Amino acid sequence: MVKQFFNPKTIAVIGATADPKKFGNAVTMNLLESKNLQSEIFPVNPRSDSILGLKSYPSILDIEKEIDLAILLVPAKAVPVIIDQCVEKKVKRIIIISAGFGEINEEGKKLEREMVSKAQEAGARIIGPNCVGIMNLDIGLNASFVLTPIKGNVSIVTQSGSFGAACLFEMWWQGLGFSKFANLGNMADVNLTDLLEYFKNDDVTEVVCIYLESVIDGRAFYNKMKEVASIKPTVILKGGRTSAGMKSANSHTGSIATDYTSLKAAIKQSGATLCEGLMDYITAIKAFSFLPLPKGKRVGILTNSGGSAVLFSDNAEEFGLEIVEFSEDFKEKINPFLLPLVKKVNPLDMIAGANGEAYYNVTKAMLENPDIDIVVPCAVIPTFFEMKPDEHFLGVIKAWNETGRKKPIFPIFMSGFLLEHVKGIAEEEKTPIFMSPKEAAFAAKILLDRAKKLQK
Amino acid sequence: MVKQFFNPKTIAVIGATADPKKFGNAVTMNLLESKNLQSEIFPVNPRSDSILGLKSYPSILDIEKEIDLAILLVPAKAVPVIIDQCVEKKVKRIIIISAGFGEINEEGKKLEREMVSKAQEAGARIIGPNCVGIMNLDIGLNASFVLTPIKGNVSIVTQSGSFGAACLFEMWWQGLGFSKFANLGNMADVNLTDLLEYFKNDDVTEVVCIYLESVIDGRAFYNKMKEVASIKPTVILKGGRTSAGMKSANSHTGSIATDYTSLKAAIKQSGATLCEGLMDYITAIKAFSFLPLPKGKRVGILTNSGGSAVLFSDNAEEFGLEIVEFSEDFKEKINPFLLPLVKKVNPLDMIAGANGEAYYNVTKAMLENPDIDIVVPCAVIPTFFEMKPDEHFLGVIKAWNETGRKKPIFPIFMSGFLLEHVKGIAEEEKTPIFMSPKEAAFAAKILLDRAKKLQK
Repeated sequence: MVKQFFNPKTIAVIGATADPKKFGNAVTMNLLESKNLQSEIFPVNPRSDSILGLKSYPSILDIEKEIDLAILLVPAKAVPVIIDQCVEKKVKRIIIISAGFGEINEEGKKLEREMVSKAQEAGARIIGPNCVGIMNLDIGLNASFVLTPIKGNVSIVTQSGSFGAACLFEMWWQGLGFSKFANLGNMADVNLTDLLEYFKNDDVTEVVCIYLESVIDGRAFYNKMKEVASIKPTVILKGGRTSAGMKSANSHTGSIATDYTSLKAAIKQSGATLCEGLMDYITAIKAFSFLPLPKGKRVGILTNSGGSAVLFSDNAEEFGLEIVEFSEDFKEKINPFLLPLVKKVNPLDMIAGANGEAYYNVTKAMLENPDIDIVVPCAVIPTFFEMKPDEHFLGVIKAWNETGRKKPIFPIFMSGFLLEHVKGIAEEEKTPIFMSPKEAAFAAKILLDRAKKLQK
Repeated sequence: MVKQFFNPKTIAVIGATADPKKFGNAVTMNLLESKNLQSEIFPVNPRSDSILGLKSYPSILDIEKEIDLAILLVPAKAVPVIIDQCVEKKVKRIIIISAGFGEINEEGKKLEREMVSKAQEAGARIIGPNCVGIMNLDIGLNASFVLTPIKGNVSIVTQSGSFGAACLFEMWWQGLGFSKFANLGNMADVNLTDLLEYFKNDDVTEVVCIYLESVIDGRAFYNKMKEVASIKPTVILKGGRTSAGMKSANSHTGSIATDYTSLKAAIKQSGATLCEGLMDYITAIKAFSFLPLPKGKRVGILTNSGGSAVLFSDNAEEFGLEIVEFSEDFKEKINPFLLPLVKKVNPLDMIAGANGEAYYNVTKAMLENPDIDIVVPCAVIPTFFEMKPDEHFLGVIKAWNETGRKKPIFPIFMSGFLLEHVKGIAEEEKTPIFMSPKEAAFAAKILLDRAKKLQK
């Protein structure tokens, strides 16, 4: 069970050190700096009695308590001996962060196989080697050398470590929080399928994300992906789609990148969402993390920037959304909120003078309009009329909250550095911001695709 | 000559006001707050004797001096009378910011035609109506109600005002500076072709950007675009590519959106760069503003994140770039700069421990390698080993500077909020940052396309 990796009562950090130039330091610091973590930490390092204020042990065998999770940060050549000690100590969960195995050469692959078979015989499982570690933010566990992000409903498993960190930083910047994070590195033992099974059953996880380069045991993976995708949005990014990418992937994790054409077909069938670049990937995850699915494809757009709505209309058509005509009733309803020069057509260009109050009223009217399934409030943050830079976004959120967040909204704010004024609110209010018309339209399409798939 | 709009010695602001809830205030403030502007400002408002510390005039006719540029911010119904006064005062350049004309109805269109013909008879030219104004940052002129961005080599003309502001804010956030900015609104008189002619001959303008929805006099526009694109990179974004977008555009500026298929063909022939979304548009402008053209398609990649390089490799293949094999000589040359586990293949995964010094040395070696035309330094900003968040980027810039900035570099930093640590440097050092592998590969493709076109 992968679950035990994520809920250890006792953790041994083998290779813990006070030297800030080593990964053994970064991991230990991350574990110690967590305010909520209840797990007991045991540094192991034969060259010190005490590390960062904790008693240090010469070897894992010297620790009196049972150890639930061992994290290995020693040089590659020392790893096999430590694995033997872990087996002797009856440790059941081991993370090998150390690199220098299967990604280097055939000998490294052989070593991996030997360690895994020893561990498995003893009923132990291994994550790694050549990985950055794992996190379970529900309990404040950061067993990796990556900074601790914010808590949320997204769980991610990646083959690539630094790229996993990059995703995490980007999502964090966009206000998205995590539940579980796992980087599997060379996947000598625990693989993507194992993590999918865990995420499927984990209650906190509402969105499942995968970055993969190669799939081990394709059939098992596809079946598990299908199971997960049928109950939770599952977003996939694949590195190594082209021959150049596959060549790079092979050098990267030492594995043969999986053929993209067949993977693509399998993913489509499974109901998971496939993305082809980092930005699309983040967009899809953001949409699933924050928004309910739409009941249909009919869009209502309000804006203070006509050109932006024109660009959105283009993307809307390309992505299969429908820009509905407003009914006469609806025009009458929104009339009191509009400046004199505004034409009551969809997209509704409320012109540059539209304030937060207008955004609140019109967003709410659209959310209450049964002819509209998807609401797109679009704004360039005004820097005149003494308007506050956050009033439009706050108006939108107020309307969304008052209508019970039943329909998805796609607020577009193309405001460069002015975006800083609203990003904090997005995080706090768990409301997405999209940074271009295309991003918002793509997010709407992704949700609509899933809604259709689930209706089948 | 459009040039005179951008270099006025005397400016009358008709509708200037101290009331911060009016555009007449925002424009006057922008003019007055410029530190370098030499132009003399004359507020015109019959209801005050003094505005923001300046003497105010009841009408433009009461100003003693000749007026080079009149900016109109009065309600639409008052505009025709003011135009008559401008003609009487022999003002040759008029910007009508006021809305409520051709974008509203046929009567508005007729009014526009009448004003333009009166003005033209008197040798005067009009920008607008329904626009946000213009800027010439070379002389510190901001005759618009948009915030003043930073100075640079990019000039932009847009049909949509708020969207123009959005582009400006986004480019500013990415460290890009402007020379001229013009929003033409309804284009009753001065049109895109006029601006292209001006940008073509303007020495400070090195990159020309256009956001357009409809083209008036297609042949003249195409010919001018071809002239400009043959000497300066010209980047175009078109709103209203689809039928939904065209419908929105029609409502937006009151003009019939130009058919996309023929425009697309004409742009391709002209050698200009066509983009299909805001983010691609900003990427292309950024690449042209900061980078020299590549001599060929051969790419060298260095990274601390294998997965990111895998994704870049995919995009590189899709965009026609070539990931070259390293020669034995080159492998030997870079060997001293690499950590023990690093495999000397392209993409060069220098692994997570690579520091700024390694980035400097390897970037420089690639820039000096005659087998490499394009260098892609890719990094996830590390948060361990006491590395400084800017050391990798500074290493890259140092290498680029020492080799005379002869080859284009595409630094990829996918670091979310950590990006803040390097963005200031990007602006100061006039070096681009790309935020995803795809963005960097797209930028390289855009430059390569132009290099090929110019070689023909």
